[in-house]
Amino acid sequence: MEHRHITLAHGNGGRFMRELIDELFARHLNDGQLDTRTDAAHLDLSGDLLFTTDGFTVKPLEFPGGSIGSLAVHGTVNDLAVAGAIPKVLSLNAFIEEGLEFAQLERIIADLAGAARACGVQVVAGDTKVLPHGEGSGLYLATSGIGVRATPGVLSLGNIRPGDVLLINGSVGDHGTAVLLAREQFGLSGDLRSDAASVLPYAQALFDLPGLRFMRDPTRGGLATVAHEIASACGLTVRLREAEIPVKDPVRGVCEMLGYDPYYLACEGRVIAVVAQDALEDVRARWRGIEGSEVALIGTVEEGASQVILETVLGGERFLEELEDDPLPRIC
Amino acid sequence: MEHRHITLAHGNGGRFMRELIDELFARHLNDGQLDTRTDAAHLDLSGDLLFTTDGFTVKPLEFPGGSIGSLAVHGTVNDLAVAGAIPKVLSLNAFIEEGLEFAQLERIIADLAGAARACGVQVVAGDTKVLPHGEGSGLYLATSGIGVRATPGVLSLGNIRPGDVLLINGSVGDHGTAVLLAREQFGLSGDLRSDAASVLPYAQALFDLPGLRFMRDPTRGGLATVAHEIASACGLTVRLREAEIPVKDPVRGVCEMLGYDPYYLACEGRVIAVVAQDALEDVRARWRGIEGSEVALIGTVEEGASQVILETVLGGERFLEELEDDPLPRIC
Repeated sequence: MEHRHITLAHGNGGRFMRELIDELFARHLNDGQLDTRTDAAHLDLSGDLLFTTDGFTVKPLEFPGGSIGSLAVHGTVNDLAVAGAIPKVLSLNAFIEEGLEFAQLERIIADLAGAARACGVQVVAGDTKVLPHGEGSGLYLATSGIGVRATPGVLSLGNIRPGDVLLINGSVGDHGTAVLLAREQFGLSGDLRSDAASVLPYAQALFDLPGLRFMRDPTRGGLATVAHEIASACGLTVRLREAEIPVKDPVRGVCEMLGYDPYYLACEGRVIAVVAQDALEDVRARWRGIEGSEVALIGTVEEGASQVILETVLGGERFLEELEDDPLPRIC
Repeated sequence: MEHRHITLAHGNGGRFMRELIDELFARHLNDGQLDTRTDAAHLDLSGDLLFTTDGFTVKPLEFPGGSIGSLAVHGTVNDLAVAGAIPKVLSLNAFIEEGLEFAQLERIIADLAGAARACGVQVVAGDTKVLPHGEGSGLYLATSGIGVRATPGVLSLGNIRPGDVLLINGSVGDHGTAVLLAREQFGLSGDLRSDAASVLPYAQALFDLPGLRFMRDPTRGGLATVAHEIASACGLTVRLREAEIPVKDPVRGVCEMLGYDPYYLACEGRVIAVVAQDALEDVRARWRGIEGSEVALIGTVEEGASQVILETVLGGERFLEELEDDPLPRIC
């Protein structure tokens, strides 16, 4: 590359843009599927297709456990996985701020490419735009993904019934806290890593499970927001048990110090599965076989008003309200 | 809406974000296809599918002849159309800067929805992120689109042969110049409108044309950049005839005053068709039937070095070099 930093000329459609695309994006992403000379990519997919999209603005761009690049793959892969699909292809939009270092952009795109390979998805279409200095913040990404449905029925909030149970595959709030700690402005540091990862192995393990009602990954707004989506869509009460919700010690410590509630912090590698009571042991058995998993039965769905109740460790109850203020902008 | 401006809380996954999505995005875009409660949309498409994506950063957000909203539809619709597909569905990413006026966002999304309806495409998936004030510039959009191939063969640069001719459906440089004039910093104004529009009617008119080789919409980098892409991919000379390339008087005037070359300025509603010489009259006949069209035979593909030659009005020749500097950042 001739320039060590991105310039406006890298966005103009001309030679520098072509070099940026060929020498950085295509070099990492090209496995024969990304043709940078065509206007649209042919999709060699059959079956019942699902389509989703997600935008990524995380700050800092790199954090313990991932980067905006791997996050852009995992976020969209996870949206397809929880909808019951095997993710197949992605499109990628990059909004790059003038002045971003090539070396950092290259690390991020390499991280993105590695995540895509690990998830079995291919980036088949892309676009880059350069934002003048001061009109961006390093890099924003968007990915759209297409997957093939692998569940016998459609997973939806409408399937949920009183008596169903909620399970999660690991601790909550790791991503939000890790990103928070990575922001120098807080003057804190720690060895906590983001949980950012593909949830496809967990979702896929349940695709053929009788009694599987619904899955969702608790990203922005965290566990509490998913619980509210369930309560609101179903007109039912979601009861969560504090004693059963895994929260790592450093997450709990940071939240206590800064006044955050870990149940509202973003996860990027967790899935909440809602299943019929009698499918509970099946979920435990299937998830326990996956490396690194920590299965927890965190709550139940009950008849009652549309609300989210937390049973505290001390035996009391409190309402988890719907999130209003933004505790942590640019967390994903 | 409770707020007249976008706040960070509109991006947090909680109540304000839900209201923004339900009361603004879904209200304009919802025709039964956009389910804001699911993680992924079912695609009811069959045939040979094509997939593309594009990002939009135009400044100002609204300009004579369009807005970033309609542009985000036309840009992706046009990429599918020139690839030989009928566009069917879009995903939409919005990166909204804190402080953007609701009223302006609503005008833009209404313009986007109107363009989508006019093009026969449905927005079936979306995501919004809010950027802290000073880390964006009002609004950036990305759209990914899926279409169904409607040409008997694959359109590609590889089909182009010496002797083929280049046609365009209207004047060049209108979009770039109109956006330039709409930027107050230039202290110029005029009644020129952007050409931003769907090129689907023009592309579709040629889908079954024997002798159709390739189509491309000359956006960033303009006509000269498309000519270079052809010359470079085919190892051939593209000869353009200045006398035949339609350029509107105000575009010519602004370019002369500010030192721009209209052949490098973005169009957003033009298509360049490369066809066999003997298909020329067929293209003219088919395009003349489309309202507002202005068919021009602007050049030929010849044996020779990989280069772009402009035959000037005075009978001379000059090379059109590959674009290097960015004449106009944030033009699309």
